[in-house]
Amino acid sequence: MSTPVWLNGRLLDATDAHIAPNDRGFLLSDGLFETIRVANGQAPHLARHLARLEEGCTILRLPTPDPTLLTQAVSDLLHATGLSDGSLRLTVTRGTGPRGLVPPVTPQPTVLIQATASALAVPAPVRLGLGRYRRDGGSPLARVKSLACLPSIMSRMEAVAAGLDDALLLGMTGAVAEASAANILFLREGRLQTPPIHDGALPGTSRARLLEGGFCTEGRLLPQDLKTVTGVWLVNALSLTAVSDIDNYELPLHPERDRRLREFLFSV
Amino acid sequence: MSTPVWLNGRLLDATDAHIAPNDRGFLLSDGLFETIRVANGQAPHLARHLARLEEGCTILRLPTPDPTLLTQAVSDLLHATGLSDGSLRLTVTRGTGPRGLVPPVTPQPTVLIQATASALAVPAPVRLGLGRYRRDGGSPLARVKSLACLPSIMSRMEAVAAGLDDALLLGMTGAVAEASAANILFLREGRLQTPPIHDGALPGTSRARLLEGGFCTEGRLLPQDLKTVTGVWLVNALSLTAVSDIDNYELPLHPERDRRLREFLFSV
Repeated sequence: MSTPVWLNGRLLDATDAHIAPNDRGFLLSDGLFETIRVANGQAPHLARHLARLEEGCTILRLPTPDPTLLTQAVSDLLHATGLSDGSLRLTVTRGTGPRGLVPPVTPQPTVLIQATASALAVPAPVRLGLGRYRRDGGSPLARVKSLACLPSIMSRMEAVAAGLDDALLLGMTGAVAEASAANILFLREGRLQTPPIHDGALPGTSRARLLEGGFCTEGRLLPQDLKTVTGVWLVNALSLTAVSDIDNYELPLHPERDRRLREFLFSV
Repeated sequence: MSTPVWLNGRLLDATDAHIAPNDRGFLLSDGLFETIRVANGQAPHLARHLARLEEGCTILRLPTPDPTLLTQAVSDLLHATGLSDGSLRLTVTRGTGPRGLVPPVTPQPTVLIQATASALAVPAPVRLGLGRYRRDGGSPLARVKSLACLPSIMSRMEAVAAGLDDALLLGMTGAVAEASAANILFLREGRLQTPPIHDGALPGTSRARLLEGGFCTEGRLLPQDLKTVTGVWLVNALSLTAVSDIDNYELPLHPERDRRLREFLFSV
């Protein structure tokens, strides 16, 4: 098999893996996903991702796939692909259904796992701007890494079109929420902080580890206060990336802090 | 063929129509759709749907499928299915791509058309409640009937779980935006009104026809003003439905007005 994927219990070549045209993930974004780091052929934080997936399924009123089955599936896919360093994407949808929003009474979820190799290079600092898409931190969906990614896609595309690398999304509260595919960390008065869920931040796994490890606390960042911060980073399950400027406001870099944070996040 | 669909230029049985697992519609809700009424084997307002699709594709920076091709595809699918009365769903995604949010430089859109038969029955009045999901009327995506439907799905599911038929979504402005799959019309001081796009209403095709026909005007409806209205309707491309109550506040019904609105909307 050239590029194996795991789909609904089977390892298949990607070209033989088919999603039905009436899958609610395809038609209605009715599902959620996890992006899981792979290092040395292992997924060290898989249990944390499966716990968040289960929380998300509960919010979506979606049957949670058996975590034992998923753990075996990840192991089988890592073995089949021989992936050493990169990531897995685990996607769960509500499966197929009739026309319209109302789901079947007994949905049969679609579960897909895809593997991607990637280099271990430390990312170069990135340039950000404030985008025009918002996250609803007051919605139950704010806690779900859902398939409804279009505002993030548009944020990223518009930033790239403006010569930037990424955009910040604001929450409905008007405060900074996150970037298109990462939480943010910011340094203010010497303390590392990250926006709260209520301001639209996704409860990212690396964000949770940093909070639990005492590396940062939650704090609100209003756009008008961006010039009071002395450092900004993007962080997700796969990487920590320094931010060099936001809408041309230059930010100091902190290579020693980067190194310590990466050591904590990605040495296991 | 038992249930033909049209997929990327071909008429196929639905069971032979396959979406790739790395289709950005499936993974990221990166696309949009139209729901098109079919009556007497025709799609009388197809041109209006194709115009809205084109506007949406422009906002999404997505190549617009050729409208001549789509018109022929609709004709071919109606012929193949023999559909007399019901609806078509036309879905356009940005097609397949590598891992992550950034689309390919030259996307090859996926285009799917599905047909569903439905009875011509006049829908019974429905019971609504105020939901807890919001629409961002200030976003460029507010004008796009995008695949990111999860807030609408959750609104509907939570309403049904509460013994209701549907929920109203509010805009970020705090005003009423729409229901989960329909615009709303409301009667206030004898005048029929519909929420503006800025309050989170999708620019629905039936809504546009009613505005152009002088049947209603745009007006803001705040939740605290719901008790000043004397009638509410749901309207989309397929139906006009009277609302009997909102969170147990009973609304008068207006069968003669229903008849006139349906006559205008659905006699052609």
